[in-house]
This record gives sequence, C-alpha cells and structure tokens, in this order.
Amino acid sequence: MNYTFPSKLLERAVDSFANLPGIGRKTALRLVLHMLKQDKEHVLNFANALSELRQNVKYCSVCHNICDNDTCDICGNPARDHETICVVQNVQDVLAIENTQQYKGVYHVLGGIISPMDGIAPSDLNIESLIERVKSGGIKEVILALSPTTDGETTNFFISRKLRPYSVKISTIARGISVGEELEYTDEITLGRSILNRIEFKSKEL
Amino acid sequence: MNYTFPSKLLERAVDSFANLPGIGRKTALRLVLHMLKQDKEHVLNFANALSELRQNVKYCSVCHNICDNDTCDICGNPARDHETICVVQNVQDVLAIENTQQYKGVYHVLGGIISPMDGIAPSDLNIESLIERVKSGGIKEVILALSPTTDGETTNFFISRKLRPYSVKISTIARGISVGEELEYTDEITLGRSILNRIEFKSKEL
Repeated sequence: MNYTFPSKLLERAVDSFANLPGIGRKTALRLVLHMLKQDKEHVLNFANALSELRQNVKYCSVCHNICDNDTCDICGNPARDHETICVVQNVQDVLAIENTQQYKGVYHVLGGIISPMDGIAPSDLNIESLIERVKSGGIKEVILALSPTTDGETTNFFISRKLRPYSVKISTIARGISVGEELEYTDEITLGRSILNRIEFKSKEL
Repeated sequence: MNYTFPSKLLERAVDSFANLPGIGRKTALRLVLHMLKQDKEHVLNFANALSELRQNVKYCSVCHNICDNDTCDICGNPARDHETICVVQNVQDVLAIENTQQYKGVYHVLGGIISPMDGIAPSDLNIESLIERVKSGGIKEVILALSPTTDGETTNFFISRKLRPYSVKISTIARGISVGEELEYTDEITLGRSILNRIEFKSKEL
C-alpha cells in the first residue's frame, strides 16, 4: 500500500516505525495512530526512553553485555563462578540462559557470529578480548553456546583453534532432542547426533 | 518470559515498546537491540518524529482528519466534490478509501464507532459536528462507510436518524462478495445479502 499521508508529521513517524525489522507500513500506521490516542506524557516518555538508551548505553568492559555501569552485574557478582565463561552470540542469549537459572558462570558476548555471506569477519566480533581473558589466566572452562548453524559451527571451530594454546577446557552446549519433542518429528541430523552423543542414564535425573 | 534486564535503560525502552498493541516483550527486546545497532542520529530522529507528531499533531477543523494545518488537504481542495461526505471510523479508513482513487468527495472522521461494550457513547464521537455540517447546507449525500459489525450498524442507524430532519440522501457502501472471492467460502449472511441487493448486469463493467 502506498498511502498518500495527510500530514508530513504522520508520514515521518510511520516511516520511522516501518524501518524496524518485521514491521510493515500498515502495522506502523496502526502503532502511530495508537500513540496519538495516548497521553502526551506517555509518548514523550517513550521517545525519551529510546534516545536515552541510544545515547547512554554502556557495554561491560569484561563480557560486552549491555549494562548501566563499567562492568555488568554478572561480572561484578562475587557469587558467580568466574572460572567458567559461556560464549554467546548476543545479549538476548544471555537473557535466555539467565532465565533458565541453571548457569552460575560468567559470559562473553561476541556481538554476532562469523558469516562470510553477511560479510562478518572474526575481527568484527569480540573474539580478541575473549582470547585475552583466557590468556590472562584463571579460566578453567569455555562453553561455546552458539546456534547450531553452519555459521555457528564455523565460529566454534575458529574460537576453539584460537584457544588451543591455552590449557582451558572447551565445551559446547548439548545438541539433542528437545524436552517434550517426539522422536518421530525430529530431524535426522539431530536424532543421529543424539544417538552418537548418548549419555549414561541416571535414575535420579528423573 | 520474565527477563531480568542487565540495564535499567534497556528495560525501560523494552517496556515502552511492549506497551504497544500486538508487540510482546520478546519482539520489543528484538526491536530495541536492533535500534542499538543503528546510528545514534537515526535513533534520535525516530524519537524526535514520535514526540513531534504527538506534540504538534492537528486535526482538520472540518472533517477531523489528521493534518498539518487548520484544514486538511482534502477539505481545502476545490477540485473535490464538497456536496458528498463519506463518514468513516478513523484515519486509516480515509487512507484506504483514498488509495482506491475512486472517491472524489470529502470525509468526516468519527474517531470510533458507538460501542456500549467498550463504553463509547455517541457524545464521544464527532457526530455532532457532522450534523452541523449537514445543517449548514450544501450537502447532497452522506455515505456511511463503517465496518459491517453490530456496532457499525448501530452507529449507521444512530446517524441516519439524526440526519432524517434534513433533506440529504443517506447511503451505505455496498456489502457483497469481495472481488476474487469464491462463492463456496463466502459466509451465508454476506451471500444472502448479495443476492437480495443484486445489481443490474452491464457488460461494459467488465
């Protein structure tokens, strides 16, 4: 739909929203008209939240997670296991893993994965600072928690080769059947790997 | 998902997005992190577009359409047919009808429809100003172009009764089978009405 907007201000706001990923012009218009029905204060607050975030956002100097200070709450927490680093692609992944409440170590956010197709080289990612963290000692294990895609595997391979000179255990998160998934509908690569990488059955695990 | 955000700024921006209709917290997070990857200028521009729209938006003094001046471009256009008023629910509907390029009259935006369930009474809508427009003369036809729902029909009925004292033709947009729709899958009320309200076949229409 190529609307001719009755107002330049409206058109500019709709264009802004329509530039966001996954939001078309029709949805953008609906969102903007929704905002026009809200209190003025509410909308100014929204605009403010965005500009303040963009201007004042900080990244943890250790793990590159988003934070409000110099180091993030996870890196600054003495109760966490600082000898284990979980390497993830982005901030969403940190939130997802934190949400499981199963991991007590620290993180390292790469900011993406190596992708020749998208022109993302190792130097575009926070890989050098990961090597530095390991090099400076005190790290026992690096867990590679990247997506099980070709790009993810390439990145895993690149990082593990870079880390080889240092005496650090390297692991990846387990691939296998999701909890609640039916064998019948699992893709064959996942199913094949889950048989090869079978684990000892412990009745207390149930 | 109840994330514990690593940054208050991030949380505030995500909350703002998640308050919009149809946007959940996961999508909100994705949008905000997308914005963090954009140029600072781009994001400030976005925030600016929203706050400026909300602060400076104007509504046409005649038809209540959104505009930048006192009257909108449609009401101010001498080439339009100012004797025909098309009554619509909201601004989106004006854009949708304008997009068809089939209508040359002017509009009247109600700002909603009468809905007892949602607590929207006739006095909440721009109905009085429509009656005033008709009362002041020069209007030949009022087209009711509201959604074919119970609330829409109620509003149609209310407006047509209010307009009865004035010598103005009242019409509604045609209900019937959509172009390209299959008879087999049309709901029975629409199909029944489309037979009752059949129109004379003119070969040149093809």
